[in-house]
Amino acid sequence: MSDWFNMTGDVDSVPIDDRGFHYGDGLFETIAIRSGQPRLWDYHMDRLARGCARLGIRMPALASLTDGLTNALQQSGLANNKCTVKLVVTAGAGQRGYGRGPVDTAPVYFGVFAATLPTAALYREGIETLVCSTRLAIHSTTAGLKTLNRLEQVLARSEFVGTDVFEGLTMDVDGNIICGTMSNLFVVHDHVISTPALERCGVEGIMRKHVIATLAEQGTRTGIRSITLADMNDSDEIFVCNSQFGVLPVRCCMKKQWPVGNVTKRVMTLLADNGIEECRR
Amino acid sequence: MSDWFNMTGDVDSVPIDDRGFHYGDGLFETIAIRSGQPRLWDYHMDRLARGCARLGIRMPALASLTDGLTNALQQSGLANNKCTVKLVVTAGAGQRGYGRGPVDTAPVYFGVFAATLPTAALYREGIETLVCSTRLAIHSTTAGLKTLNRLEQVLARSEFVGTDVFEGLTMDVDGNIICGTMSNLFVVHDHVISTPALERCGVEGIMRKHVIATLAEQGTRTGIRSITLADMNDSDEIFVCNSQFGVLPVRCCMKKQWPVGNVTKRVMTLLADNGIEECRR
Repeated sequence: MSDWFNMTGDVDSVPIDDRGFHYGDGLFETIAIRSGQPRLWDYHMDRLARGCARLGIRMPALASLTDGLTNALQQSGLANNKCTVKLVVTAGAGQRGYGRGPVDTAPVYFGVFAATLPTAALYREGIETLVCSTRLAIHSTTAGLKTLNRLEQVLARSEFVGTDVFEGLTMDVDGNIICGTMSNLFVVHDHVISTPALERCGVEGIMRKHVIATLAEQGTRTGIRSITLADMNDSDEIFVCNSQFGVLPVRCCMKKQWPVGNVTKRVMTLLADNGIEECRR
Repeated sequence: MSDWFNMTGDVDSVPIDDRGFHYGDGLFETIAIRSGQPRLWDYHMDRLARGCARLGIRMPALASLTDGLTNALQQSGLANNKCTVKLVVTAGAGQRGYGRGPVDTAPVYFGVFAATLPTAALYREGIETLVCSTRLAIHSTTAGLKTLNRLEQVLARSEFVGTDVFEGLTMDVDGNIICGTMSNLFVVHDHVISTPALERCGVEGIMRKHVIATLAEQGTRTGIRSITLADMNDSDEIFVCNSQFGVLPVRCCMKKQWPVGNVTKRVMTLLADNGIEECRR
């Protein structure tokens, strides 16, 4: 049995003329499944819809995506476990050459994997990070979206494979911190919470949106702005988030160290009370 | 019979866990086959080797690539025709997640297609172009290389599918013309030939290199520099090139028109005498 499914059954390959393979002409979402249900599904679908609109792919019907996800979970045998579904939508098979018209019926694939979560110690004491030497290109036409063009993340993440570093932070060429290879970043300065602006590059994470919304419900505004490496090193606390692990404190970035501060702890408690059980400390 | 082959036989799919599909973690070359032989093979292999080095993929042995190409051509039944081989090298199957170690044995695929060449009228009278609204991101970590991350070209080329426009020119955010969606660009100003610098974005085309080398053999130096849209519109002649069609004069870009000038004609004659028979006018 493969880990991968399409709308009808399990699959172990994609057609070699799929434009996802040749050009990265497609999108994906990595969805946490908890108690058999996809977490933050609406946020995932919202980002996917924005990506489809940008790429000229008709967004698959939500009912069909829900059905496909349910089928994949059932067939995987992992439906009752904490797991992760990687949902991939591509522009499908097409003639050779970059150009194409709008795509009406996009192939959809679902990969189902057991969740691999950080240890309790990492939630309590924080993670180790570094600043990657790979820089993100700026003024990307697909900034914020989760397309299948992910070479920058591959190169950045591959810088610290096999080390104790949990996450690598990536900068743009102007020295702004943008995000982690698989997470978004928040900094706390004098009790003010900020996160990097993502208009020019980076991925607008689902959990970033959930953190901002959860804080807003409590009347706390998150600043969205340019944050340089110096700004970050000058901050009182920093934490990262993604859709799988929720929020993790950052205890160091190379030589710079931070405590697990009260603002981070408060954010984690708020998140734990708002559907992200992993953040319960 | 598929149009696609691996090192041993024909294939119609790729494993769904291939990193080329998920991240665009791979490279390609589009090689013109003329009289049964790959044209400008050394240049293609040089760019592929640079791409492999950047991506941490061991360059496949040249002898095995030659064997694979020969086998694919024979099995395709197109070996005696003008045709195009698309050679794809990927980082192969891997665990989920961006990070990976170096790749020792990369999968290689060969697609074989009948050549589709421009009409004689286009070589004689020039092509119609436009400036795409899609802009190329700058400071790309893979600038110059031909990776499988090609969404910018997909979006730019898709702007004029179904029109009479032959090629779209792409700019960076600073208003510099960089290249066409599938070609490189040269401008002629007061008999001086220049082509855009590609340090920040764009693809270093094989035929661009051959044009520069062919001119250099004649003692003509090509300027490699920033070229704005205004510079381009101010030039006396412009032409584009790629590995399949060689060199084509540009007769217009939106409202701006150019004659097919003497420098362009001379370049085409030099190319025709240096292995690019399509340029014989």
